[in-house]
Amino acid sequence: MSTRRGLHLNAFLQFVGHHEAAWRVGRAGPHAGWDVDHHRHLAQVAERGRLDAIFFGDSPAAYASHHSDLAHRPLGRLDPTILLPALGAATSNIGLIATASTTYTEPYELARRLASLDHVTKGRAGWNIVTTSSANAARNFGLPEHPDYATRYGRAEEFLEVVLALWDSWPAEAVLADRASGRFADAGLIRTIDHRGTHFDVAGPLNVPRPPQGHPVLVQAGSSDTGIAFAGRYAEAIFTAQIDEEHARAFAVRLRRSVAAAGRDPQRVLILPGLMPILGGTEAEALAYRRRLGEAVVPGSILPAISKLTGFDLTEADLDRTLTEADFPPGGQRSSRSDLVAELVAGGDLTVRDLIVRYAAGRGHLTVTGTPEQVAGIIERWWRSGAADGFNIMPPAFPEGLEAFVDQVVPILQRRGIFRTDYEGSTLRDHYGLPVPPAHTSTTTLEAVR
Amino acid sequence: MSTRRGLHLNAFLQFVGHHEAAWRVGRAGPHAGWDVDHHRHLAQVAERGRLDAIFFGDSPAAYASHHSDLAHRPLGRLDPTILLPALGAATSNIGLIATASTTYTEPYELARRLASLDHVTKGRAGWNIVTTSSANAARNFGLPEHPDYATRYGRAEEFLEVVLALWDSWPAEAVLADRASGRFADAGLIRTIDHRGTHFDVAGPLNVPRPPQGHPVLVQAGSSDTGIAFAGRYAEAIFTAQIDEEHARAFAVRLRRSVAAAGRDPQRVLILPGLMPILGGTEAEALAYRRRLGEAVVPGSILPAISKLTGFDLTEADLDRTLTEADFPPGGQRSSRSDLVAELVAGGDLTVRDLIVRYAAGRGHLTVTGTPEQVAGIIERWWRSGAADGFNIMPPAFPEGLEAFVDQVVPILQRRGIFRTDYEGSTLRDHYGLPVPPAHTSTTTLEAVR
Repeated sequence: MSTRRGLHLNAFLQFVGHHEAAWRVGRAGPHAGWDVDHHRHLAQVAERGRLDAIFFGDSPAAYASHHSDLAHRPLGRLDPTILLPALGAATSNIGLIATASTTYTEPYELARRLASLDHVTKGRAGWNIVTTSSANAARNFGLPEHPDYATRYGRAEEFLEVVLALWDSWPAEAVLADRASGRFADAGLIRTIDHRGTHFDVAGPLNVPRPPQGHPVLVQAGSSDTGIAFAGRYAEAIFTAQIDEEHARAFAVRLRRSVAAAGRDPQRVLILPGLMPILGGTEAEALAYRRRLGEAVVPGSILPAISKLTGFDLTEADLDRTLTEADFPPGGQRSSRSDLVAELVAGGDLTVRDLIVRYAAGRGHLTVTGTPEQVAGIIERWWRSGAADGFNIMPPAFPEGLEAFVDQVVPILQRRGIFRTDYEGSTLRDHYGLPVPPAHTSTTTLEAVR
Repeated sequence: MSTRRGLHLNAFLQFVGHHEAAWRVGRAGPHAGWDVDHHRHLAQVAERGRLDAIFFGDSPAAYASHHSDLAHRPLGRLDPTILLPALGAATSNIGLIATASTTYTEPYELARRLASLDHVTKGRAGWNIVTTSSANAARNFGLPEHPDYATRYGRAEEFLEVVLALWDSWPAEAVLADRASGRFADAGLIRTIDHRGTHFDVAGPLNVPRPPQGHPVLVQAGSSDTGIAFAGRYAEAIFTAQIDEEHARAFAVRLRRSVAAAGRDPQRVLILPGLMPILGGTEAEALAYRRRLGEAVVPGSILPAISKLTGFDLTEADLDRTLTEADFPPGGQRSSRSDLVAELVAGGDLTVRDLIVRYAAGRGHLTVTGTPEQVAGIIERWWRSGAADGFNIMPPAFPEGLEAFVDQVVPILQRRGIFRTDYEGSTLRDHYGLPVPPAHTSTTTLEAVR
């Protein structure tokens, strides 16, 4: 584990690309999102680039809110906790981060699944903790409605306390494996946790020994006050959407303050914004590629989202009409994304089609359209200024977007001496420079065994 | 898919062996049960032998009832749904069967996990459906007590109806992937299931398209009346413990009658008893190996089970004392296992230590101690007589017990022309000779999408 501050890069994998039109424009066949071979290739490309980890999002529902979402883009996804062991078997070092919901799983079951992932991959597992924002998931789990924000975070907090205790309930040193005496384990060291709480009653112990990393690396993405307080207590890496460097630095300060307030080392948390690199040999080529992707988006599938964001109905608008500030009255909803749209329009000479092209790229994440040097330059600048410890790379289309990043951007970062040229360890904690957490002291000891 | 009746063989994998003393006597290190490399080797050996599948049992608890069980044998297991994708990546054809509980999971979550396993392994997944008999599991999932048998089977039945509907909710043909028009899916073909029942309310659709095998092969192990009725409706393969050929034939007749009563083809269900082969170059060598294994069992870890079975307390008995019929008064509990013990004692000249040696081998499953020819002979005889369609092979110690079976017994079965010399297909259904099930007709269609 290196103590020098490193640059950290994850490949954020999703279907055939992060751009909504990837399936129409990209090299992968439109069915590739469910094809293990496609994902294996991506994992191997990311490992070739010595990236820290591959990462999958997740939600236990077929669509967020509109089933019409299914019509124009690949949705539905393999369970990442099932896909990642297969990708781990096809790679040797790269970290493997799965998203899983605390709202729609049980702590004993998920603690065990993630501990198993860490064992099966010899210490490469990470867990992106989400409470699931899709209201639609509730109806797949017998709930009349999606629990509100406070309930979800209350459950998430108790969930974390339970899984952390379970991961510590069977310490590795309990296994004596003394062939001569016939004592397999010191059962006295394997402890129940006897958790009784608001949301869960869990006795334990877990039926898997403590994972190689102590526990999987805990990742979190909330940017609200509640999310930041939660991250302060538990998160070891933060995924976030930031499009402005100053704002990103302020977010990092705020986040580290929350970590310190929870009594943890604020430098032991990595802040990793999403970054969509739209690459070209020249800036003009990159812009042309962005336009080609944007024009392949079915307007009917994206204009409702843009309209909702801006508070102005563009769903029936003529695609070639030039937008003016009058199209975005000040009464609309304000957010960093709507500000971005208003800014673009104020810049002038923007048609509805142009807006789609710009909005579809990145969708609220930092998007850099340019040459490999330009992308590497932004990465280095944000990293040096403390706006980021690294990035979740979100290529617009797989595999070519990831291949281009690994073959063209990573070598520049390596030549500049800010990114590793080989792995220095074999676990995700090694790559992230995070220590194996000490085991918590459990309260209950099983009655001693003769 | 062959229509000729084939012989089917699974490798039942468990820790470092099915014999309780495997960790003391066997070649694998005592920690191998949590080591993916150990399991990868076993999967590859089984595939080298052209076996139908590898199979893992499971229970969501660290021990069944006594935490002292942890003291003398390897317990705790990796989640098979996490281990199997990794093993699938290291093999190409062999089937991969995971046990998972309907009592301690949610149908949407498990349907998706198993569908993902079938996608990731290109049609090699099987699901061994259990309701979990360990009372200890309940306390890990917030239940005051383990649900009774009827409740568990009621839930299991509704669980199956839900997951079958979910697996059919997103037919492969719904994915149009028409790059030219921009239509990714015909959302009208992706249907909610709108299940409302006693145990579950599940809207659907599943967020994964229909698995390559239609759905994973359904395996079940219940031998009670309720279990047989359940198997009649759903099971495509039956795992069972049978030690007597006549009794096994009667069980097979009864089981197939239940399948026919449910309106299904009784020949499309495979009956696969467990079989522990204790192999030696000569019968004497095999018997000596059995004794070596048996004498490595810590008496304190097995005598409580034998005592409970026979109704006579042997926990403090002198190990060298010869047992008599008086030690097993007729008032004790009757079962096929207790009958077996009584029979052994009636045979005469059996010490407590001898009883441990005999009981520890197989533990209620058919055990053949002998040469490869003798083991192959029993397999062929049971298969020809209709007592079994094949076996779940339970080697006493891994890897040597599986290697010996594959290298010494399988070639005999192949020479006799009753076992495949190569795979004829690439899915578990191919190996088992089972058809891809037709999709059920769903009732609700999502509103058409423009």
